[in-house]
Amino acid sequence: MLPVVVVHGGAGHIPKERSELSTSGVTSAVRAGYAVLRGGGSSMDAVVEAVTYLENNPAFNAGCGSVLNVKGDVEMDAFVMEGKTLGSGAVSAVRNIANPIQLARLVMDKTSHLCLTAEGAKQFARSMGVPEVPQESLITEYSRMRWRKNLAPDANPVECQMGKMGTVGAVAVDSQGNVACATSTGGILNKMEGRVGDTPCIGCGGYADNMVGAVSTTGHGEAIMKVVLAKHILYQMEQGQSVEAASDLGLACMKFRAAGLGGVITVDPQGHWAARFSSRQMAWAAAQKDTLHYGLYEGENFTQSIDVQH
Amino acid sequence: MLPVVVVHGGAGHIPKERSELSTSGVTSAVRAGYAVLRGGGSSMDAVVEAVTYLENNPAFNAGCGSVLNVKGDVEMDAFVMEGKTLGSGAVSAVRNIANPIQLARLVMDKTSHLCLTAEGAKQFARSMGVPEVPQESLITEYSRMRWRKNLAPDANPVECQMGKMGTVGAVAVDSQGNVACATSTGGILNKMEGRVGDTPCIGCGGYADNMVGAVSTTGHGEAIMKVVLAKHILYQMEQGQSVEAASDLGLACMKFRAAGLGGVITVDPQGHWAARFSSRQMAWAAAQKDTLHYGLYEGENFTQSIDVQH
Repeated sequence: MLPVVVVHGGAGHIPKERSELSTSGVTSAVRAGYAVLRGGGSSMDAVVEAVTYLENNPAFNAGCGSVLNVKGDVEMDAFVMEGKTLGSGAVSAVRNIANPIQLARLVMDKTSHLCLTAEGAKQFARSMGVPEVPQESLITEYSRMRWRKNLAPDANPVECQMGKMGTVGAVAVDSQGNVACATSTGGILNKMEGRVGDTPCIGCGGYADNMVGAVSTTGHGEAIMKVVLAKHILYQMEQGQSVEAASDLGLACMKFRAAGLGGVITVDPQGHWAARFSSRQMAWAAAQKDTLHYGLYEGENFTQSIDVQH
Repeated sequence: MLPVVVVHGGAGHIPKERSELSTSGVTSAVRAGYAVLRGGGSSMDAVVEAVTYLENNPAFNAGCGSVLNVKGDVEMDAFVMEGKTLGSGAVSAVRNIANPIQLARLVMDKTSHLCLTAEGAKQFARSMGVPEVPQESLITEYSRMRWRKNLAPDANPVECQMGKMGTVGAVAVDSQGNVACATSTGGILNKMEGRVGDTPCIGCGGYADNMVGAVSTTGHGEAIMKVVLAKHILYQMEQGQSVEAASDLGLACMKFRAAGLGGVITVDPQGHWAARFSSRQMAWAAAQKDTLHYGLYEGENFTQSIDVQH
């Protein structure tokens, strides 16, 4: 059953013309993460590799392709956590960085803190030798078009948000049974400057515990936070629920208590995994036993064999 | 049993010469919160009032009296949550504000977001007409002395942190059975610029749910985050544990899984309350049935009657 890696490209509603981009993006990312695991890499290495792929892909709302805040700027949040130590790292509202997920990992590895925000996060990046990138390199024409459209007084950014796949994330278990998660996002369309969502908030955007499993979440951030979604799902698993049932219970709680839709990917240390969503769609992919699984609409689980290079 | 309000002035080790200041600070704050409740105010009004008192008191590490970051600056985090709606508001790494807890409430009341950080939080404060205060007005001689001492290369800020009472917080239940929590802090001594701790992180620094109860936490922030302490305690209560047992189980989990010490105040909607800590001391006070309770060391529960003005 081990190793296994699962990725998502955000919960929401994908316009038909963009669905192929989403599917090819998540399958490429999961292959990259799986190659790390098959090469003996840790689950943390694998989730960071997979999310880096998604950040670099302009089709997703993370890194290049992030949505713009109300001022037209890119401010990004990211989070990583490893289940062996409960160690984690996060950055919030960070600018001018190509790969916030790698910066979140540096926060975990190189500081005694768990989260750095805004200008402090940028200064830390500089001190670690992470290159600063011009904001323009993170902005796509599509992001700018949607930003303009949502400046109209009658626009509904939350509804429109669901019109683009959002946050990206990955969970993995390596052959030692160590679980990890990683989540990265540009946040919510036309957000206020300095808005921090669920992603960098431990237990909301993700959580990893070798005694239970790992989760990465996506969807309406404020609703995810209200129910502390990732931790909620792991509590259900501690009570004996399967990865699938626990994920569904978490999403049902989010709908019932916070009127929000979203999606999650979940693994347990034995390698059971689930990709579940209450939104119309979620691009997801998983790799296990040299088989690629992927889907976009409810009930889909396409498979392909993975040709592993030795 | 209702209404009830409980406050803490931070878990840690208080130098003897400062213990009187801590006790008088928390008892004054709890009286202020109780007066709000007895006057028909909501639990949210009461916890914000109590925490405002503590922020204005230079003896505590929140508002005026906050610890300084490594550069000698004050950056503060605050969080409020109401159990009726699961609505919450937070600010992180905010500067030049006298009462971050009031700004956190404005985030809850006036925006569609749950958390604003750094410069964005400051701009929001300005847009709400919250006065900007000079940083000097938030810094005490004691804070500056401790900051200087901890710049020494062999200093241990985490250990020294426990030498001052930390984060402040309050939980309350009003006569309608609505619970609320509020937590505010200057963070950890000599922290990196932009460090965000547990306080503004929902489920860590606090949580409130009318179906279960409310918690405000204090102690080593990074350890609180590892176990998502406030939410953990409420899960124990959902499983049938008393406020006291759930609080102790949460603190034991934090010690066992994250090697951290801290303290919590907890209420349930029926008005049962607890003030528990694994650190050497925690200044706390509670008000219920016109009686004031307070303590500083384990096992203490001094009482006084409260003369309620009609």
